[in-house]
Formats: sequence, structure tokens, C-alpha cells
Amino acid sequence: MPSGKLQVIPLGGLGEFGMNCMAVRYGDDIVVIDAGMMFPEAELLGVDIVVPDISYLVENRDKVRAILLTHGHEDHIGALPWILSELNVPIYGTEFTLAYVEGKLEEHGLLDDADLIEIRPGARFKVGIFTIHAMQVTHSLVDCVALAVHTPLGVIIHTGDFKVDPTPTDNRLFDLHAFAEYGKENVLALFQDSTNVERRGYTPSERAVRARFAEIFHRAPRRLFLSCFSSSIHRINLAIEAAYNNGRKVALVGRSMNESVEIAQDLGYIDMPEGAFITPGQIRDYAPEKVCVLISGTQGEPMSALSRAAVDNHKHAKIEPNDTVVLSSRIIPGNEKSIYRVIDHLFRRNAHVIYDDGSTPPVHVSGHASQEELRLIINLVRPRYFIPVHGEYRQLKLHAELAQAMRGAVGQVLMMESGDVLEFDELGARKAGKVKVGRVCIDSGSMGEVVEDLVIRDRRHLSEDGFVLPIIAINKLTGQVESVPEIVMRGFAPGSEGDAFVEKSRETIMKTLEASSPEEIADYGVIKEKVRQDLKRYIAKSTQRRPLIMPVILEI
Amino acid sequence: MPSGKLQVIPLGGLGEFGMNCMAVRYGDDIVVIDAGMMFPEAELLGVDIVVPDISYLVENRDKVRAILLTHGHEDHIGALPWILSELNVPIYGTEFTLAYVEGKLEEHGLLDDADLIEIRPGARFKVGIFTIHAMQVTHSLVDCVALAVHTPLGVIIHTGDFKVDPTPTDNRLFDLHAFAEYGKENVLALFQDSTNVERRGYTPSERAVRARFAEIFHRAPRRLFLSCFSSSIHRINLAIEAAYNNGRKVALVGRSMNESVEIAQDLGYIDMPEGAFITPGQIRDYAPEKVCVLISGTQGEPMSALSRAAVDNHKHAKIEPNDTVVLSSRIIPGNEKSIYRVIDHLFRRNAHVIYDDGSTPPVHVSGHASQEELRLIINLVRPRYFIPVHGEYRQLKLHAELAQAMRGAVGQVLMMESGDVLEFDELGARKAGKVKVGRVCIDSGSMGEVVEDLVIRDRRHLSEDGFVLPIIAINKLTGQVESVPEIVMRGFAPGSEGDAFVEKSRETIMKTLEASSPEEIADYGVIKEKVRQDLKRYIAKSTQRRPLIMPVILEI
Repeated sequence: MPSGKLQVIPLGGLGEFGMNCMAVRYGDDIVVIDAGMMFPEAELLGVDIVVPDISYLVENRDKVRAILLTHGHEDHIGALPWILSELNVPIYGTEFTLAYVEGKLEEHGLLDDADLIEIRPGARFKVGIFTIHAMQVTHSLVDCVALAVHTPLGVIIHTGDFKVDPTPTDNRLFDLHAFAEYGKENVLALFQDSTNVERRGYTPSERAVRARFAEIFHRAPRRLFLSCFSSSIHRINLAIEAAYNNGRKVALVGRSMNESVEIAQDLGYIDMPEGAFITPGQIRDYAPEKVCVLISGTQGEPMSALSRAAVDNHKHAKIEPNDTVVLSSRIIPGNEKSIYRVIDHLFRRNAHVIYDDGSTPPVHVSGHASQEELRLIINLVRPRYFIPVHGEYRQLKLHAELAQAMRGAVGQVLMMESGDVLEFDELGARKAGKVKVGRVCIDSGSMGEVVEDLVIRDRRHLSEDGFVLPIIAINKLTGQVESVPEIVMRGFAPGSEGDAFVEKSRETIMKTLEASSPEEIADYGVIKEKVRQDLKRYIAKSTQRRPLIMPVILEI
Repeated sequence: MPSGKLQVIPLGGLGEFGMNCMAVRYGDDIVVIDAGMMFPEAELLGVDIVVPDISYLVENRDKVRAILLTHGHEDHIGALPWILSELNVPIYGTEFTLAYVEGKLEEHGLLDDADLIEIRPGARFKVGIFTIHAMQVTHSLVDCVALAVHTPLGVIIHTGDFKVDPTPTDNRLFDLHAFAEYGKENVLALFQDSTNVERRGYTPSERAVRARFAEIFHRAPRRLFLSCFSSSIHRINLAIEAAYNNGRKVALVGRSMNESVEIAQDLGYIDMPEGAFITPGQIRDYAPEKVCVLISGTQGEPMSALSRAAVDNHKHAKIEPNDTVVLSSRIIPGNEKSIYRVIDHLFRRNAHVIYDDGSTPPVHVSGHASQEELRLIINLVRPRYFIPVHGEYRQLKLHAELAQAMRGAVGQVLMMESGDVLEFDELGARKAGKVKVGRVCIDSGSMGEVVEDLVIRDRRHLSEDGFVLPIIAINKLTGQVESVPEIVMRGFAPGSEGDAFVEKSRETIMKTLEASSPEEIADYGVIKEKVRQDLKRYIAKSTQRRPLIMPVILEI
């Protein structure tokens, strides 16, 4: 790259939901902000997680100085095992964020070799040519930071995920003063979270759910089950507080809920009186009105504790008539059907089910800034350049329009997508080319395995119409076809053809073979393709279906 | 069934979304209310539509007197081709409803033999022992009716889909008087639409979008594309009116939009001044600010006109910078990802995109009654028994609770699900057994073909991990294995095993064969299962995956 220039290159998260990852480069120094994953769309069959293509970082591996983490959500740290296995560089994060990272790396046997460096909110530290300033922000998770990166060309600020919560449950406030200080001086560029740009007004404080919890906990006639994201430490704290106030013991059910609460307790984010917790096995030892169960599985994940409890298939979490079940979470788009299936089952168990239906006080609030908070930060920071990050294209665009309307506070608004290179020099900023980015599909069955596009395409094809495999035995000495072709099929329904289908397929193949010369038959590639074509035509005509057809020659 | 009793049997739509169908029986007379389909969930791979299992009707085919239709939406008429091909009985419906039915039956070659009987809202007619009274109701579609069925034991009322719209665009009002008349006398049972029971207050009138349309049509600087359900005749009327008021010609793009408008025009529901319409080919002949395009595809269906226009792949509908695109429709749960994908593409084309984001006046309103309307109808009808219909379990339950709280107006509330038999006699009503119901999956590739559960299960399996097929050639004379086994696989990635996988799989199979006796090898069932088990174990251990494994013996 040209000397004296600063480049900012989003490798994921701009124009897509999740997979947040951004490289900042000056000369021979690169730092990476966040390393997130994305949950796959349904059409990526059999794929468990999706991570960003990091070819750019691998090609510049000698220049990558560190990965800087803003907070511990999966869309910001979930790709770390995958990236670290390619590129082992130091990782900077807050105490709580690193506790999540440790668990994740340990699972993949990468912890021993990892170089994790803890930072405190407010800290400044040098990485290569850059000085980094981690500024405390508020979000649904605790111990989150925005990053001010001091470069030779000026300061750039990346908000990470945030809301401006005036009353966080841990009383650790958004560091508005640090943002204001930068704004008084000169900020080269602001990169801001676009997730909630479609929402007007302010996002309510995490504490807004307290009033609703108080009412629910007070009224629940029997056992109370409460499900929220296991990383929602604020929410868990409010639930524990409400349980305590109403004389209920708290049981934790589900792996992620247990792990998360353990971390939060270790680090002092959850402070419980002695004897407040009971084990899942003890739930039945207490009167139903004396128990609150915090349970994993807000998104209807089929194997989660809540899904299993809903169909009466959990050893300890038994939901009985008149029990209350609270889903304190949002419905992530794409999960509606699974979530409503769980809710239906809970109704069938005659539980009182409380979910986010828009009533106030709310049973769930978002962790992301709405329009007025976005405007507030822009007004505080007054950046020369404004670039929306974290969002699908429409969200980036709406965020850009929002900033564009703030002429007093913003110099220029730039729209970028993953892979775009944004280049700054003394004269200003502009897009300067592209780097290779993309989605890498990972099958967690054997972590680290990339699932190729071709395999996913095959699976999609198989999932729609199944397969038909004609098998032809050829004598390798004589070149003669040795028997009647065998037809194997699965996931394919011949429909009205029914039982005649196999016989007619055989006839079709035999005709193809008879019409082929010995040279064609000797060239397996040619004869396979001829068989495939003719059989495809017959099947399409007689059944209107298009199974995967894959002729096999067995040499004997 | 016992004599002197009335049975009501929902065959679909209670405890599930869509597939509305209900049998009403007295002695040897059965009438069926609605015959709807449901769109399949994503996990029903390769299935196009789902229809109710009508075994009960087929078993009682000599007693089924008619199918009575409340309105023309797919979840009320979509199963007709499937049912009529099993059971050709007269179909009663309003003019507009039958126009939709005709198109559908013609497509399946069933129109000539069908017996379609038109009814007017307000009409009373006899079917078997029953007298039916069709009462006009309002909904997002036009020409909709509720049904009062007079039986020897009293009158039962089925609302069909409805809202209480005080200002429908066609000025054909909800027949509140007929409902009130029945309420003054004595109604045995009310079966009421539960779709919107989770919404407080009143559903706004269809006319509520008029103010928003007026503003949008007035402000749009260039071409205006408006997408809504093609059956939303009220909405189309408002759009045409707004176009006319703003000097815009109207082009119809998309098959369903054209068909629907043609029917509505024929029947007088759309009344356009001469020369108001232009063909899609004429769009470019007019100044951009003089054109409004009504376009199909609100749900992001991949082949719809709007989806194609969004990626600049439609011959006539070209979306250019500064054009306006309005999605006047709701996001059906499960379609979020596809819809937002289309919206993102529209933003990329630099169009102004307007979708239902909760702002007022609304760009879309629902066609179903909210809580206050549900209460209004209950108060008018004052039924002895109240049974919620049309809804997933939680909606039926919430509707039951809503009715239960209205002690002055409702005798008793009963919860039913599809398949339950509700029996009335002189003493009252009770559940009396169950009939066989279920979902029949249809592949529209060759209409009428049922896709069996097993096939769907195979497809799901294939879609997750693909398949591995070991092929073993056995000489039928000697019983000897004739060659090294062939391994065929697709949609399966052996991961870290890589190229060694095939070789190691062959070795595994050879070991199994060597360890088997000639008797075992001669029994193909036994040897196939042994090979499958051993290979499954090897693959699970070495790749953590579970492809479909299907050994094939080729006799030569």
C-alpha cells in the first residue's frame, strides 16, 4: 500500500447480519477489530456456523499485530477459533469478554497457545504504530467497549455494539465524557453500529424490564421459568433480584446459562446472598411458589433446555399447569416458527406464557441504540467522516441518510460494504479498491472443516428431489455390460409411475447402451453422461421431478 | 353416529396455521366449511403445498352434501383440487370466491366436472337437512361471508376470516344486523377466527392506508412500484385511486396481479376510467413521474416479479435511482429473510423503499379482527357455546381466555383441535372422540402426488450430511465378491480424512466381508446391514458425520 496512508477494510458485517470483523492498516501495521461469526441461513444445509474469509489477513500475516475485541457476543468473537488456527496473534479484550473467549478456545484446544491480553475500560495501550483507547459503553452484555484508534492521520472511533443506557444494572456508565473529549478535538472517522437504525426514539434502559419482572414474580401462582439469552447478564441480575424479593430460590437449567452465570459470578457481576441458588435436582424439594428457574433456549433451539421442558422431556425442568414461563428475549428473524412451536407446547402444558408482545412495561428491551442515541453519539463525536457498520444494506443506507441529515455534526458520509478498502490520506478519504471477502461455511461436527459450496449445492439438490443412481457393471476385459442395470434411489418419489418406474428406467438405460458404440462404452465419462442425459429426460417427462442422477460404472 | 346428534369436526386449521376445513354432520348429512391448504414449513423439503387428510370425508363419501366456502384465500380454497379429485361434491361460494376457484380448477383440469353454485351474501339455501345463511363480512379480500348453519338442534355460526371494517372500499358493510338477529334469538355455538387475538384494540379499516398512499403518491419523484397481495382488492383499488388522483398510469406486472385484477374488473370490484391502464411494455413510453406499477411478490418469492425487478432481471419493471417502492403487506413469519433480501436489493438500486415499520398512517393493515372486534361479535351473538377456530394452539387458548372472561355473553367455552369430534345433543355439547386428521404433503411438480413421510425424512437426512453408497458386486453363481467395492458419495464432505477416506472405507468393507460367512454373504439383507453398521461406525468416528449409508449389492 502507498506510504502515509491509512486503510480501513471491513472483512464482514457490512451488508450482512453478523460476522463483524474489520482491519485497520497503516503501513506495515494491521489491527483487527472483532472476529465474529454468523448463524447460517436455512438454505445452507448442514452448515453450523459461518465465518468471514480472512484471505486478506493471511496474505498479510506478518503485519497483523492484534485482534481487538469490543465485547463477548458470538457475532464479535465467534470466528476466533477459526482465525487463530490460521493466524495466532495477541487478542485484547476486557475481563468479561476474555472469559468467554477462554471457554471457546479451550473447547477447540487452542487456549494453551493463545496470547490473551486483558484491558480495562478506559485503558490506553500501544499496538504497532497505533495507540488504542478502550472506552466503556453500555449494551445487553456487560464489560463492553468502543475503540478509539489513534493513527498518524488522526483518531478513528469504532462504537462496537452499544446503546446509551442511563441506568445499567451494574452502574458502569457509558463513557460519554471520553466521546465528548474526542469530539472537542478532531475525529477523523466514526464507525457506528446500525442494528437498530429503523427504530425511532430511544431504546429503553435494561432496567425498564424491572417493573414487569416485579409484577410477574409477584403474581406467579406457582413455579416461574424465565428464559433469556445466557449472555444477558443485566437481565439475569434483574431476575435474580426479583426472585430474592419474592422469596424464590433460583435454579439454573441449561449448559449456556450455567456457564454464563458462573463467569459472571466469578467476575463479580452477579452477587448473590448465600443459599439463594439451588441445583436443578432440588427444584422439587421446594414449594412451587418458592422456585424460579432460569433456563436456556429463547430461540426455540430444538435441543435447548426450554424446548425439551416444553415437550415434557427434561429431567428437572417440569412445567406443570399454572406454572409461569417468561421469554425475556427478542424473536430473531428466521426463528419465528421454532419459537412459536415452543410457545404452543407451553400453552398445551397449561402454563401462563409471557412473551414480548409490545405491551409495557416491556418483558424485553433491545441492546442496540435507536435513532436518537445514534444522533447523540454523532453530535458528541462530530466526525469528519461517518461510516455506518453492523447492518444489512438497508440498515447501512438508512443510517447513512440519518447522518447525512446532520450537516452541523458530520463532514461526509461514506457507504461501505464488506471488502471495500477505505483509504485516508492528508487530503481526505475515498474507496480504493477491494479485497477478497466472503462467507466460509463450517461444519461443527469436526470443527475447522470448511464445507465447500459444491457440497452445499448437492445437499440442496438432494433435499428437494433426492437421488437416482443407475449402476452399470462392465467387464473390464471384454468391455461388455455384464448385467441388467441396478437402480438405487432415495428421497425420490416416482409418483404416478410407481412400481413401473424402475423397470422403465432400466429399459431407458439399456436403450442408451445399445445405441452406443463400444468406444463410447469404453470411455466411462462419455457413457455416464449419455445415460444421465437420457434418464434425466425420461424422469423429467414422466414425473416432472429433477432428482440428482449419478450413473456409476462398476468395473468387474 | 347416534341419532338426534349434531357433530362438528375440524379437519384442519385448529392448532395450526392454514388448512382450514371443518365438517358439520347431522345424521346422514355432512357439509364441509372451507377446504384450505397450508404453505409448507422449511423442513418439509421439496414439498410445495400441504392439504388436510380427508379420510373422514372419504369414508363418509355418500353423506357429504357440499363444500361451503367463506372466501377465496388459499388457506380456505387451496385444497379444493385435491379434495375434488377424491370427492366430487357441489361447491357453494360467492361470485368472487368462485371466480378464484374456477381458475384453480381449470389449472388442474377439474373445472368441467365441477358443480359450482353461486350464492349471494344474505342468501339462505338448503343443503341436506341444513339451511345455510351466508352473511356478509369484511376482510382484506372482497365478497366474504360468515355462515349460519341451521340444524335440528339450533343455529351454529362460523365467522370465516373477518375484521369489522366500518369503511370498506367497496362500501359493502359487515352484516352486523344478521349477527344481532341471531343473538336476540338463540345461537347454539359460535366458531370464531382467532388469527389476531394477540392484538389489542381494533384493526384499522382498509381505508386507513389511503392517507399514506396519498402522501406517497404525491411525493414520489419518479416511478412508483407498489406491491401487495394480489387478492387484496381493497388495497389495489386504493392504489389505483391514488394513481389516478396524481396523474399516473397504472401498469400491472406479475401473473397473479394480472389475473386478480382481471377477475375484480370483470365482477365490477375495480372500476377504472378509460385509458387508466397501460401495458408493462408501455412503462418506458411515459415520463417516470406519470407511472405506477402494481407488482406481484410481497413475500420475497424468488421468481416473483418484484424479486426479479430488485436484481434488475425483469424485462419491463426496471427500478432506477430515486424510484419509489412500496411494500403494502405484512411479513408472514418464516419469510423475513427472503423479504429483507429483496428490500436490501431495492436499497442497492437507490430506490426509496417504504415498508410496514409501525409508523402511522400505516402502509398496511391486517384483514383479521383484533380483540375488541372479537368481543363485539361475541356480544352480538351471545352463543351458548364458544369455540375458537383458525389459529395455532396459543391463539386458540388466548381466544378461549378472552371469551371465558365474558360471562354475560357466553355460556361455555370449549377448546378443540383438528380431529376432535364435538358432539351436541339436547343436553349440551362435549368432545366425543377423534377422527383421523393430518397433513398431506403434495409435490406440485405432478399435482396430486403425495410425498410420503419417509421420502421427506430421507431428504432431510440427505440435506444435512449427503450420502455414501458402497457398491459390492457379487457373482450370483459362486457367491464370491467379484471386485473391490466402489464408494459413491455426494453432499458428503469427508473433512480431515480427505482423499484417504475412500480407501479406508473400502478397507472397512473388505474387513466386514472377510469376517462374514458365505451364508451371511448369500443373504443380501444380512450382509448389507453388517456393511452399513461397520461403515457407519468408521465414518462417525473419523468425521463426526452421519451421512445416509445405503449398501448396494450388484448381482452379476
